[in-house]
Amino acid sequence: MLLYPGFAALDLVGPHQFIAGLMEADVHLVWKNKDPIATGPGNLSILPTATFEECPADLDLLFVPGGLEGTIAVMRDDKVLSFLSERGAHAKHVTSVCTGSLVLGAAGLLRGYRATSHWAFKDLLPLLDAIPARGRVVEDRNRITGAGVTSGIDFGLTVSARMSGVEAAEMLQLLNEYDPDPPFDAGTPRKAGPQITSQLTNLLAPGIANVRAAAVAAGQRLNKS
Amino acid sequence: MLLYPGFAALDLVGPHQFIAGLMEADVHLVWKNKDPIATGPGNLSILPTATFEECPADLDLLFVPGGLEGTIAVMRDDKVLSFLSERGAHAKHVTSVCTGSLVLGAAGLLRGYRATSHWAFKDLLPLLDAIPARGRVVEDRNRITGAGVTSGIDFGLTVSARMSGVEAAEMLQLLNEYDPDPPFDAGTPRKAGPQITSQLTNLLAPGIANVRAAAVAAGQRLNKS
Repeated sequence: MLLYPGFAALDLVGPHQFIAGLMEADVHLVWKNKDPIATGPGNLSILPTATFEECPADLDLLFVPGGLEGTIAVMRDDKVLSFLSERGAHAKHVTSVCTGSLVLGAAGLLRGYRATSHWAFKDLLPLLDAIPARGRVVEDRNRITGAGVTSGIDFGLTVSARMSGVEAAEMLQLLNEYDPDPPFDAGTPRKAGPQITSQLTNLLAPGIANVRAAAVAAGQRLNKS
Repeated sequence: MLLYPGFAALDLVGPHQFIAGLMEADVHLVWKNKDPIATGPGNLSILPTATFEECPADLDLLFVPGGLEGTIAVMRDDKVLSFLSERGAHAKHVTSVCTGSLVLGAAGLLRGYRATSHWAFKDLLPLLDAIPARGRVVEDRNRITGAGVTSGIDFGLTVSARMSGVEAAEMLQLLNEYDPDPPFDAGTPRKAGPQITSQLTNLLAPGIANVRAAAVAAGQRLNKS
Protein backbone atom coordinates (compact mmCIF):
# COMPACT_ATOMS: atom_id res chain seq x y z
CA MET A 1 0.00 0.00 0.00
CA LEU A 2 1.59 3.25 -1.17
CA LEU A 3 1.64 6.22 1.23
CA TYR A 4 2.46 9.75 0.07
CA PRO A 5 2.17 13.26 1.52
CA GLY A 6 -1.45 14.44 1.39
CA PHE A 7 -3.09 11.07 0.69
CA ALA A 8 -6.60 10.76 2.17
CA ALA A 9 -6.25 8.57 5.29
CA LEU A 10 -9.69 6.99 4.88
CA ASP A 11 -8.88 5.92 1.28
CA LEU A 12 -6.21 3.63 2.74
CA VAL A 13 -7.49 2.78 6.22
CA GLY A 14 -10.84 1.45 4.91
CA PRO A 15 -9.22 -1.21 2.68
CA HIS A 16 -6.43 -1.77 5.25
CA GLN A 17 -8.92 -2.85 7.91
CA PHE A 18 -10.12 -5.62 5.62
CA ILE A 19 -6.80 -6.61 4.02
CA ALA A 20 -4.88 -6.59 7.33
CA GLY A 21 -7.73 -8.65 8.81
CA LEU A 22 -7.02 -11.52 6.40
CA MET A 23 -5.28 -14.33 8.25
CA GLU A 24 -2.07 -14.48 6.23
CA ALA A 25 -1.80 -10.90 5.01
CA ASP A 26 1.61 -9.29 5.36
CA VAL A 27 0.92 -5.60 4.72
CA HIS A 28 3.62 -3.03 3.90
CA LEU A 29 2.99 0.72 4.00
CA VAL A 30 5.52 1.98 1.52
CA TRP A 31 7.18 5.33 0.81
CA LYS A 32 10.61 6.72 -0.12
CA ASN A 33 11.64 6.83 3.53
CA LYS A 34 10.11 6.07 6.92
CA ASP A 35 9.35 9.59 8.13
CA PRO A 36 5.72 10.13 9.21
CA ILE A 37 3.44 11.01 6.31
CA ALA A 38 0.90 13.81 6.83
CA THR A 39 -2.48 12.88 5.35
CA GLY A 40 -5.25 15.29 4.37
CA PRO A 41 -7.56 16.75 5.55
CA GLY A 42 -6.60 17.40 9.16
CA ASN A 43 -3.48 16.59 11.09
CA LEU A 44 -3.36 12.82 10.99
CA SER A 45 0.07 11.31 10.28
CA ILE A 46 0.79 7.66 9.48
CA LEU A 47 4.15 5.87 9.60
CA PRO A 48 5.53 3.97 6.59
CA THR A 49 6.76 0.46 7.39
CA ALA A 50 8.99 -0.08 4.34
CA THR A 51 10.94 1.97 1.80
CA PHE A 52 10.59 1.37 -1.94
CA GLU A 53 13.82 -0.67 -1.78
CA GLU A 54 12.57 -2.78 1.14
CA CYS A 55 9.20 -3.54 -0.46
CA PRO A 56 9.03 -7.16 -1.69
CA ALA A 57 9.45 -7.58 -5.46
CA ASP A 58 6.45 -9.87 -5.99
CA LEU A 59 3.25 -8.56 -4.44
CA ASP A 60 -0.16 -10.19 -4.17
CA LEU A 61 -1.65 -6.71 -4.23
CA LEU A 62 -0.41 -3.23 -5.08
CA PHE A 63 -2.66 -0.45 -3.74
CA VAL A 64 -2.68 3.32 -4.25
CA PRO A 65 -4.96 5.65 -2.21
CA GLY A 66 -6.22 9.00 -3.51
CA GLY A 67 -5.58 12.52 -2.24
CA LEU A 68 -5.98 15.85 -3.97
CA GLU A 69 -2.76 17.90 -3.62
CA GLY A 70 -0.60 14.87 -3.00
CA THR A 71 -1.88 13.10 -6.10
CA ILE A 72 -0.54 15.93 -8.24
CA ALA A 73 2.99 15.64 -6.84
CA VAL A 74 3.23 11.83 -7.17
CA MET A 75 1.80 11.89 -10.71
CA ARG A 76 4.91 13.91 -11.61
CA ASP A 77 7.43 11.99 -9.49
CA ASP A 78 9.61 9.63 -11.56
CA LYS A 79 10.78 7.70 -8.51
CA VAL A 80 7.20 6.93 -7.44
CA LEU A 81 6.03 6.15 -10.98
CA SER A 82 8.89 3.74 -11.69
CA PHE A 83 8.32 1.99 -8.33
CA LEU A 84 4.64 1.54 -9.25
CA SER A 85 5.18 0.44 -12.84
CA GLU A 86 7.90 -2.03 -11.78
CA ARG A 87 5.88 -3.59 -8.90
CA GLY A 88 2.65 -3.34 -10.89
CA ALA A 89 4.11 -5.44 -13.71
CA HIS A 90 4.53 -8.38 -11.28
CA ALA A 91 1.69 -7.88 -8.76
CA LYS A 92 -1.24 -10.31 -8.79
CA HIS A 93 -3.69 -7.41 -8.27
CA VAL A 94 -3.14 -3.74 -9.17
CA THR A 95 -5.60 -1.58 -7.27
CA SER A 96 -6.64 1.87 -6.09
CA VAL A 97 -9.35 3.88 -4.36
CA CYS A 98 -10.46 7.41 -5.34
CA THR A 99 -7.91 9.48 -7.30
CA GLY A 100 -5.35 6.73 -6.68
CA SER A 101 -6.43 5.46 -10.11
CA LEU A 102 -4.94 8.60 -11.68
CA VAL A 103 -1.61 7.75 -10.05
CA LEU A 104 -1.82 4.17 -11.36
CA GLY A 105 -2.72 5.65 -14.74
CA ALA A 106 0.26 8.02 -14.69
CA ALA A 107 2.47 4.98 -14.08
CA GLY A 108 1.02 3.43 -17.25
CA LEU A 109 -0.81 0.70 -15.34
CA LEU A 110 -4.35 1.35 -16.62
CA ARG A 111 -3.77 1.57 -20.40
CA GLY A 112 -6.70 -0.23 -22.02
CA TYR A 113 -8.28 -1.15 -18.68
CA ARG A 114 -11.77 -0.25 -17.47
CA ALA A 115 -11.45 1.74 -14.23
CA THR A 116 -13.11 4.26 -11.94
CA SER A 117 -12.11 7.16 -9.68
CA HIS A 118 -13.72 9.85 -7.50
CA TRP A 119 -16.82 11.14 -9.37
CA ALA A 120 -15.32 14.62 -9.81
CA PHE A 121 -12.13 13.23 -11.40
CA LYS A 122 -13.38 10.24 -13.36
CA ASP A 123 -13.46 12.03 -16.71
CA LEU A 124 -9.65 12.45 -16.47
CA LEU A 125 -9.07 8.70 -16.84
CA PRO A 126 -8.99 8.74 -20.70
CA LEU A 127 -6.06 11.19 -20.54
CA LEU A 128 -4.13 8.18 -19.16
CA ASP A 129 -5.57 5.72 -21.70
CA ALA A 130 -7.94 4.15 -19.15
CA ILE A 131 -11.63 3.53 -19.90
CA PRO A 132 -14.04 5.08 -17.35
CA ALA A 133 -16.58 2.47 -16.24
CA ARG A 134 -19.73 2.43 -14.11
CA GLY A 135 -19.69 0.91 -10.64
CA ARG A 136 -18.54 1.67 -7.11
CA VAL A 137 -15.80 -0.95 -7.54
CA VAL A 138 -14.64 -1.76 -11.07
CA GLU A 139 -12.84 -5.03 -11.84
CA ASP A 140 -11.10 -5.58 -15.17
CA ARG A 141 -8.82 -8.64 -15.19
CA ASN A 142 -6.38 -7.98 -12.30
CA ARG A 143 -7.11 -4.26 -12.05
CA ILE A 144 -9.55 -3.32 -9.25
CA THR A 145 -10.37 0.36 -8.77
CA GLY A 146 -12.79 2.00 -6.32
CA ALA A 147 -14.72 5.25 -6.58
CA GLY A 148 -14.35 8.14 -4.04
CA VAL A 149 -13.00 7.74 -0.48
CA THR A 150 -15.67 5.64 1.31
CA SER A 151 -15.86 3.18 -1.60
CA GLY A 152 -12.72 1.76 0.00
CA ILE A 153 -14.93 -0.32 2.30
CA ASP A 154 -16.79 -1.94 -0.61
CA PHE A 155 -13.42 -2.26 -2.38
CA GLY A 156 -11.90 -3.93 0.72
CA LEU A 157 -14.66 -6.54 0.74
CA THR A 158 -14.30 -7.18 -2.99
CA VAL A 159 -10.55 -7.65 -2.66
CA SER A 160 -10.94 -9.87 0.44
CA ALA A 161 -13.28 -12.16 -1.48
CA ARG A 162 -10.90 -12.36 -4.46
CA MET A 163 -7.90 -13.11 -2.25
CA SER A 164 -9.47 -15.37 0.42
CA GLY A 165 -12.97 -16.31 -0.73
CA VAL A 166 -16.47 -15.07 -0.05
CA GLU A 167 -16.75 -16.67 3.40
CA ALA A 168 -13.64 -14.83 4.66
CA ALA A 169 -15.04 -11.58 3.22
CA GLU A 170 -18.38 -12.13 4.95
CA MET A 171 -16.66 -12.80 8.28
CA LEU A 172 -14.76 -9.53 7.87
CA GLN A 173 -18.00 -7.74 6.99
CA LEU A 174 -19.61 -9.04 10.20
CA LEU A 175 -16.50 -8.31 12.30
CA ASN A 176 -16.54 -4.74 11.04
CA GLU A 177 -20.35 -4.52 11.32
CA TYR A 178 -20.64 -3.22 7.77
CA ASP A 179 -24.38 -2.75 7.49
CA PRO A 180 -24.40 0.85 6.26
CA ASP A 181 -27.26 3.17 7.16
CA PRO A 182 -26.41 6.70 5.99
CA PRO A 183 -28.49 9.34 7.80
CA PHE A 184 -28.62 11.40 4.58
CA ASP A 185 -28.74 10.45 0.90
CA ALA A 186 -26.28 12.73 -0.83
CA GLY A 187 -23.50 10.34 -1.83
CA THR A 188 -23.59 11.00 -5.59
CA PRO A 189 -24.11 14.20 -7.60
CA ARG A 190 -27.55 12.96 -8.70
CA LYS A 191 -28.64 12.19 -5.14
CA ALA A 192 -27.13 15.36 -3.66
CA GLY A 193 -28.91 17.50 -6.27
CA PRO A 194 -27.66 20.46 -8.33
CA GLN A 195 -27.27 22.99 -5.48
CA ILE A 196 -24.94 20.99 -3.24
CA THR A 197 -23.14 19.49 -6.23
CA SER A 198 -22.35 22.86 -7.80
CA GLN A 199 -21.28 24.34 -4.44
CA LEU A 200 -18.84 21.47 -3.95
CA THR A 201 -17.67 21.44 -7.58
CA ASN A 202 -16.88 25.16 -7.28
CA LEU A 203 -14.81 24.50 -4.14
CA LEU A 204 -12.97 21.66 -5.85
CA ALA A 205 -12.47 23.47 -9.20
CA PRO A 206 -8.90 24.78 -8.64
CA GLY A 207 -7.76 21.34 -7.41
CA ILE A 208 -9.45 19.58 -10.33
CA ALA A 209 -7.71 21.95 -12.78
CA ASN A 210 -4.31 21.17 -11.24
CA VAL A 211 -4.95 17.42 -11.32
CA ARG A 212 -6.09 17.69 -14.94
CA ALA A 213 -2.83 19.46 -15.85
CA ALA A 214 -0.85 16.68 -14.15
CA ALA A 215 -2.90 14.04 -15.98
CA VAL A 216 -2.37 15.74 -19.35
CA ALA A 217 1.40 15.87 -18.75
CA ALA A 218 1.47 12.23 -17.58
CA GLY A 219 -0.54 11.14 -20.63
CA GLN A 220 1.93 12.89 -22.95
CA ARG A 221 4.87 11.14 -21.27
CA LEU A 222 3.09 7.77 -21.63
CA ASN A 223 2.53 8.29 -25.33
CA LYS A 224 6.16 9.24 -25.92
CA SER A 225 7.55 6.18 -24.17
CA MET B 1 -10.07 12.15 19.68
CA LEU B 2 -8.38 9.68 22.02
CA LEU B 3 -5.69 7.37 20.61
CA TYR B 4 -4.43 4.35 22.55
CA PRO B 5 -2.33 1.28 21.73
CA GLY B 6 -4.38 -1.28 19.82
CA PHE B 7 -7.29 0.99 18.87
CA ALA B 8 -8.89 0.10 15.52
CA ALA B 9 -7.64 2.66 12.99
CA LEU B 10 -10.86 2.66 10.96
CA ASP B 11 -12.95 3.42 14.11
CA LEU B 12 -11.17 6.77 14.26
CA VAL B 13 -10.25 7.53 10.64
CA GLY B 14 -13.87 7.19 9.44
CA PRO B 15 -15.19 9.92 11.75
CA HIS B 16 -11.96 11.92 11.39
CA GLN B 17 -12.45 12.27 7.63
CA PHE B 18 -15.80 13.98 8.28
CA ILE B 19 -14.90 15.97 11.40
CA ALA B 20 -11.57 17.20 10.01
CA GLY B 21 -13.46 18.15 6.83
CA LEU B 22 -15.62 20.66 8.72
CA MET B 23 -14.44 24.18 7.96
CA GLU B 24 -13.53 25.30 11.46
CA ALA B 25 -12.65 22.00 13.09
CA ASP B 26 -9.45 21.98 15.14
CA VAL B 27 -8.84 18.28 15.75
CA HIS B 28 -6.44 16.93 18.40
CA LEU B 29 -5.30 13.29 18.48
CA VAL B 30 -4.59 12.81 22.16
CA TRP B 31 -2.54 10.35 24.20
CA LYS B 32 -0.21 10.35 27.24
CA ASN B 33 2.75 11.19 25.04
CA LYS B 34 3.51 11.77 21.35
CA ASP B 35 5.13 8.46 20.49
CA PRO B 36 3.54 6.68 17.50
CA ILE B 37 0.56 4.52 18.49
CA ALA B 38 0.29 1.05 16.93
CA THR B 39 -3.30 0.31 15.88
CA GLY B 40 -4.80 -3.13 15.32
CA PRO B 41 -5.08 -5.20 13.21
CA GLY B 42 -1.94 -4.88 11.07
CA ASN B 43 1.02 -2.60 11.35
CA LEU B 44 -0.47 0.84 10.95
CA SER B 45 0.82 3.48 13.39
CA ILE B 46 -0.64 6.95 13.90
CA LEU B 47 0.99 9.94 15.60
CA PRO B 48 -0.68 11.76 18.51
CA THR B 49 -0.76 15.55 18.12
CA ALA B 50 -1.33 16.49 21.79
CA THR B 51 -0.73 15.06 25.24
CA PHE B 52 -3.50 14.89 27.85
CA GLU B 53 -2.03 18.06 29.41
CA GLU B 54 -1.94 19.90 26.05
CA CYS B 55 -5.52 18.99 25.12
CA PRO B 56 -7.86 22.02 25.45
CA ALA B 57 -10.06 22.01 28.58
CA ASP B 58 -13.34 22.79 26.80
CA LEU B 59 -14.03 20.54 23.85
CA ASP B 60 -16.85 20.67 21.31
CA LEU B 61 -16.49 16.93 20.96
CA LEU B 62 -14.76 14.15 22.88
CA PHE B 63 -14.34 10.93 20.86
CA VAL B 64 -13.14 7.44 21.81
CA PRO B 65 -12.52 4.71 19.19
CA GLY B 66 -12.81 0.99 19.92
CA GLY B 67 -10.17 -1.74 19.86
CA LEU B 68 -10.15 -5.16 21.43
CA GLU B 69 -6.94 -5.66 23.44
CA GLY B 70 -6.31 -1.96 23.83
CA THR B 71 -9.79 -1.33 25.20
CA ILE B 72 -9.04 -3.66 28.10
CA ALA B 73 -5.90 -1.78 29.11
CA VAL B 74 -7.47 1.70 28.96
CA MET B 75 -10.60 0.55 30.84
CA ARG B 76 -8.23 -0.13 33.76
CA ASP B 77 -5.99 2.91 33.35
CA ASP B 78 -6.71 5.63 35.94
CA LYS B 79 -4.83 8.29 34.01
CA VAL B 80 -6.92 7.70 30.87
CA LEU B 81 -10.20 7.41 32.78
CA SER B 82 -9.66 10.63 34.72
CA PHE B 83 -8.71 12.47 31.53
CA LEU B 84 -11.95 11.26 29.92
CA SER B 85 -14.22 11.96 32.88
CA GLU B 86 -12.73 15.42 33.36
CA ARG B 87 -12.96 16.45 29.66
CA GLY B 88 -16.28 14.62 29.27
CA ALA B 89 -17.86 16.70 32.04
CA HIS B 90 -17.27 19.87 29.99
CA ALA B 91 -17.45 18.65 26.36
CA LYS B 92 -20.44 19.66 24.24
CA HIS B 93 -20.63 16.14 22.76
CA VAL B 94 -19.33 12.91 24.33
CA THR B 95 -18.97 10.25 21.66
CA SER B 96 -17.56 6.88 20.61
CA VAL B 97 -17.53 4.22 17.91
CA CYS B 98 -17.47 0.45 18.50
CA THR B 99 -16.10 -0.68 21.90
CA GLY B 100 -15.08 2.93 22.58
CA SER B 101 -18.44 3.14 24.40
CA LEU B 102 -17.10 0.67 26.99
CA VAL B 103 -14.18 3.02 27.63
CA LEU B 104 -16.57 5.98 27.98
CA GLY B 105 -18.64 3.78 30.30
CA ALA B 106 -15.63 2.85 32.41
CA ALA B 107 -14.98 6.58 32.85
CA GLY B 108 -18.54 6.93 34.20
CA LEU B 109 -19.71 8.92 31.20
CA LEU B 110 -22.64 6.73 30.12
CA ARG B 111 -24.48 6.21 33.44
CA GLY B 112 -28.19 6.43 32.66
CA TYR B 113 -27.59 7.10 28.96
CA ARG B 114 -28.87 5.05 26.02
CA ALA B 115 -25.88 3.86 24.00
CA THR B 116 -24.56 1.26 21.56
CA SER B 117 -21.34 -0.63 20.84
CA HIS B 118 -20.03 -3.39 18.55
CA TRP B 119 -22.76 -6.09 18.31
CA ALA B 120 -20.60 -8.69 20.08
CA PHE B 121 -19.95 -6.36 23.06
CA LYS B 122 -23.20 -4.45 23.36
CA ASP B 123 -24.58 -6.60 26.20
CA LEU B 124 -21.68 -5.42 28.40
CA LEU B 125 -23.03 -1.85 28.49
CA PRO B 126 -25.31 -2.40 31.53
CA LEU B 127 -22.23 -3.41 33.57
CA LEU B 128 -21.29 0.27 33.23
CA ASP B 129 -24.83 1.55 33.98
CA ALA B 130 -25.52 2.37 30.31
CA ILE B 131 -28.74 1.34 28.56
CA PRO B 132 -28.18 -0.65 25.32
CA ALA B 133 -30.30 0.84 22.52
CA ARG B 134 -31.13 -0.09 18.93
CA GLY B 135 -29.60 1.80 16.04
CA ARG B 136 -26.37 2.10 14.11
CA VAL B 137 -25.82 5.52 15.72
CA VAL B 138 -27.52 6.21 19.07
CA GLU B 139 -28.08 9.77 20.28
CA ASP B 140 -29.17 10.48 23.86
CA ARG B 141 -28.87 14.15 24.80
CA ASN B 142 -25.16 14.98 24.16
CA ARG B 143 -24.00 11.36 24.05
CA ILE B 144 -23.56 9.94 20.52
CA THR B 145 -22.35 6.35 20.19
CA GLY B 146 -21.84 4.25 17.06
CA ALA B 147 -21.99 0.48 16.54
CA GLY B 148 -19.03 -1.58 15.23
CA VAL B 149 -16.09 -0.17 13.23
CA THR B 150 -17.65 0.92 9.89
CA SER B 151 -20.56 2.64 11.67
CA GLY B 152 -18.01 5.43 12.15
CA ILE B 153 -18.95 6.74 8.69
CA ASP B 154 -22.65 7.03 9.58
CA PHE B 155 -21.57 8.43 12.97
CA GLY B 156 -19.32 11.00 11.25
CA LEU B 157 -22.24 12.23 9.15
CA THR B 158 -24.54 12.42 12.18
CA VAL B 159 -21.96 14.41 14.16
CA SER B 160 -21.23 16.71 11.18
CA ALA B 161 -24.93 17.55 10.92
CA ARG B 162 -25.21 18.25 14.66
CA MET B 163 -22.13 20.47 14.66
CA SER B 164 -22.47 22.26 11.30
CA GLY B 165 -25.93 21.55 9.91
CA VAL B 166 -27.41 19.10 7.40
CA GLU B 167 -26.13 20.95 4.33
CA ALA B 168 -22.51 20.70 5.53
CA ALA B 169 -23.02 17.01 6.26
CA GLU B 170 -24.47 16.41 2.79
CA MET B 171 -21.52 18.20 1.17
CA LEU B 172 -19.16 15.94 3.13
CA GLN B 173 -21.18 12.90 2.08
CA LEU B 174 -20.83 13.90 -1.58
CA LEU B 175 -17.15 14.81 -1.21
CA ASN B 176 -16.49 11.37 0.27
CA GLU B 177 -18.83 9.68 -2.26
CA TYR B 178 -20.67 7.87 0.53
CA ASP B 179 -23.21 5.90 -1.48
CA PRO B 180 -22.51 2.45 0.00
CA ASP B 181 -22.98 -0.66 -2.12
CA PRO B 182 -21.69 -3.68 -0.15
CA PRO B 183 -20.93 -6.64 -2.45
CA PHE B 184 -22.15 -9.03 0.28
CA ASP B 185 -24.87 -8.74 2.92
CA ALA B 186 -23.31 -10.07 6.12
CA GLY B 187 -23.00 -6.94 8.24
CA THR B 188 -25.10 -8.12 11.21
CA PRO B 189 -25.40 -11.52 12.93
CA ARG B 190 -28.92 -11.94 11.51
CA LYS B 191 -27.80 -11.16 7.96
CA ALA B 192 -24.58 -13.20 8.19
CA GLY B 193 -26.52 -16.23 9.44
CA PRO B 194 -25.74 -18.70 12.24
CA GLN B 195 -22.73 -20.42 10.66
CA ILE B 196 -20.56 -17.35 10.03
CA THR B 197 -21.76 -15.70 13.23
CA SER B 198 -20.84 -18.65 15.43
CA GLN B 199 -17.46 -19.07 13.71
CA LEU B 200 -16.65 -15.43 14.39
CA THR B 201 -18.09 -15.44 17.91
CA ASN B 202 -15.86 -18.44 18.71
CA LEU B 203 -12.81 -16.57 17.43
CA LEU B 204 -13.75 -13.50 19.49
CA ALA B 205 -14.72 -15.42 22.66
CA PRO B 206 -11.42 -15.08 24.58
CA GLY B 207 -11.27 -11.35 23.83
CA ILE B 208 -14.92 -10.85 24.80
CA ALA B 209 -14.28 -12.65 28.12
CA ASN B 210 -11.33 -10.35 28.89
CA VAL B 211 -13.31 -7.24 27.99
CA ARG B 212 -16.20 -8.49 30.15
CA ALA B 213 -13.83 -8.89 33.13
CA ALA B 214 -12.55 -5.35 32.59
CA ALA B 215 -16.14 -4.04 32.38
CA VAL B 216 -17.16 -5.87 35.58
CA ALA B 217 -14.17 -4.38 37.44
CA ALA B 218 -14.88 -0.89 36.02
CA GLY B 219 -18.56 -1.16 37.03
CA GLN B 220 -17.60 -2.08 40.58
CA ARG B 221 -15.26 0.92 40.79
CA LEU B 222 -18.05 3.21 39.49
CA ASN B 223 -20.48 1.97 42.14
CA LYS B 224 -17.97 2.48 44.97
CA SER B 225 -17.18 6.08 44.01
